[in-house]
Amino acid sequence: MNKIRVGIVGYGNVAAGVVKAILAASDMELVAVFTRRDPSSVKLQEGSSPILPISAAEGKRDSIDAMILCTGSATDLPEQGPHFAKSFNIVDSYDTHSKIPGYLAAVEAQAVSAKKTAIISTGWDPGLFSLMRLYFESVLPAGATGTFWGKGVSQGHSDAIRKIPGVAHAVQYTVPLDSAVENARKGAGEAPPPWEKHRRECYVAIQPGADKKEIEKTIKEMPDYFAGYDTTVTFAELSELFANHGKMPHGGMVIRNGNTGINEQSMEFSLKLDSNPEFTGSVMVAYARAAYRLAAEGIYGAKTVFDIPPVYLSEAPRETLIKELL
Amino acid sequence: MNKIRVGIVGYGNVAAGVVKAILAASDMELVAVFTRRDPSSVKLQEGSSPILPISAAEGKRDSIDAMILCTGSATDLPEQGPHFAKSFNIVDSYDTHSKIPGYLAAVEAQAVSAKKTAIISTGWDPGLFSLMRLYFESVLPAGATGTFWGKGVSQGHSDAIRKIPGVAHAVQYTVPLDSAVENARKGAGEAPPPWEKHRRECYVAIQPGADKKEIEKTIKEMPDYFAGYDTTVTFAELSELFANHGKMPHGGMVIRNGNTGINEQSMEFSLKLDSNPEFTGSVMVAYARAAYRLAAEGIYGAKTVFDIPPVYLSEAPRETLIKELL
Repeated sequence: MNKIRVGIVGYGNVAAGVVKAILAASDMELVAVFTRRDPSSVKLQEGSSPILPISAAEGKRDSIDAMILCTGSATDLPEQGPHFAKSFNIVDSYDTHSKIPGYLAAVEAQAVSAKKTAIISTGWDPGLFSLMRLYFESVLPAGATGTFWGKGVSQGHSDAIRKIPGVAHAVQYTVPLDSAVENARKGAGEAPPPWEKHRRECYVAIQPGADKKEIEKTIKEMPDYFAGYDTTVTFAELSELFANHGKMPHGGMVIRNGNTGINEQSMEFSLKLDSNPEFTGSVMVAYARAAYRLAAEGIYGAKTVFDIPPVYLSEAPRETLIKELL
Repeated sequence: MNKIRVGIVGYGNVAAGVVKAILAASDMELVAVFTRRDPSSVKLQEGSSPILPISAAEGKRDSIDAMILCTGSATDLPEQGPHFAKSFNIVDSYDTHSKIPGYLAAVEAQAVSAKKTAIISTGWDPGLFSLMRLYFESVLPAGATGTFWGKGVSQGHSDAIRKIPGVAHAVQYTVPLDSAVENARKGAGEAPPPWEKHRRECYVAIQPGADKKEIEKTIKEMPDYFAGYDTTVTFAELSELFANHGKMPHGGMVIRNGNTGINEQSMEFSLKLDSNPEFTGSVMVAYARAAYRLAAEGIYGAKTVFDIPPVYLSEAPRETLIKELL
């Protein structure tokens, strides 16, 4: 059987995870990584795929079955998603929840006219967590769902701290509050807003002469990111940050407490990840397989994890899955 | 919008759960319950649907959009599944894991030629647990999956004890061993066989003059059901069994400990159910919605939970799901 030929756009931590997952899949091969940087400056952590300038992607349209976009949601994907959907079946992890409908429509327009299949917003939230929210609410329509993130490093929050003048480096952990998790399990009332169910732990190294009190105040009062949260700021040496906070663990939970009349029923899904980007990459690779298969069947357009029959995700044939996993 | 018109075959505990779930769904209505018993002897726990003899089902083929089969896997469904798939879109909870491929083929043959859609083996195991096993293995191909059942009442094991001469009544709880759950979370080696990861608690009321020692021995040595398991037998009065062991709680866990190279990643799904039959019924109703929708799109044949796009399960439209749950 021919292998599924996969390309990657962008090479950061998630893309490195995608490369690992492709190398581990016996039905896939990595064709090339496309970068906006000088290709000679990019070194793959694993594998020996060609690194090409992003401008070379179009020339490879006939030798790539699925293109995995590992670039950012803020400014990259809104442009790249619709662009690459003109020439490739694509998968991304677009994660600006509030803008997903608009992004989906923009990708759909291009994918449909180009007869390509795009699966957007894969990964784990959006992605697997979204799937759980949908399954849980479909089978238990009466009830409440709580989503918790952590304990884990939030890249966005770490970056926000790093941009504060005087900060040399920072790592931020999102931590769910045990009491809020217990309340969700018991189905205690309405789901609280994120700042009432998580706290934020910040580890910060400062530049020489910077004002710790001022930095701590700036962090704790930062709107959208920290204001309203129970936030702790711990100052540490740069060396300690690299030694003890250099990994990218994450995880979280989706909890539904529902009922069927008088009977309480609860469902829970949880992730404990040593490496958030590698796990996200693994999920994207499974959906790249699905994108390729759907396109091969002539099912085009922009899809989400909600639209994909689970059977399309596995390397194993349907008969084997039914026999061994059903 | 017209409501989805649902029929039910068989009326036991699961069917009572199906009725509840249909009454709670604003997009469905219950047309009739079909029974092999004298219809006048059947009283619904809830609702006021007509109770009709099973022979009347065929006459209703044009007024039922999906028929939910709530009969047994051992002898009923192998005959009824293919039979009803000739005239109806059907959903069942066929749960004899080893015989699923043959059953699927038998239903497929009838459903395809009749242009009907059948979704077999829904519920939670097979069903939601199967889905989790598939998602987990697809996104983390390297690793091991453990499935645990309980703590909960096993109807099959309770029935097996009740058939022993001298037994008046019995309730059997399957209980996962904490140590085995911890091992699965840590990814400690191969998944052990069921008897090494569960124990069995039996509560038994005897008939006057029956021999407790003999009954206990018969239970503990019963092949397939109890032999090899850590089994405890507690004798109690009939009144105590009804008072303290009259409910049908169940639950369980699917745990995958996998890795992406050197990084450990774990995924866990768990259910805690006050009422096993009501939850099973709720899952079946969500899949009845999917069967109806697939048939309306001309997608016929025998399907499993692996084949169904999650979006088909919810009462809410796709746009709403994408906006609110993705």
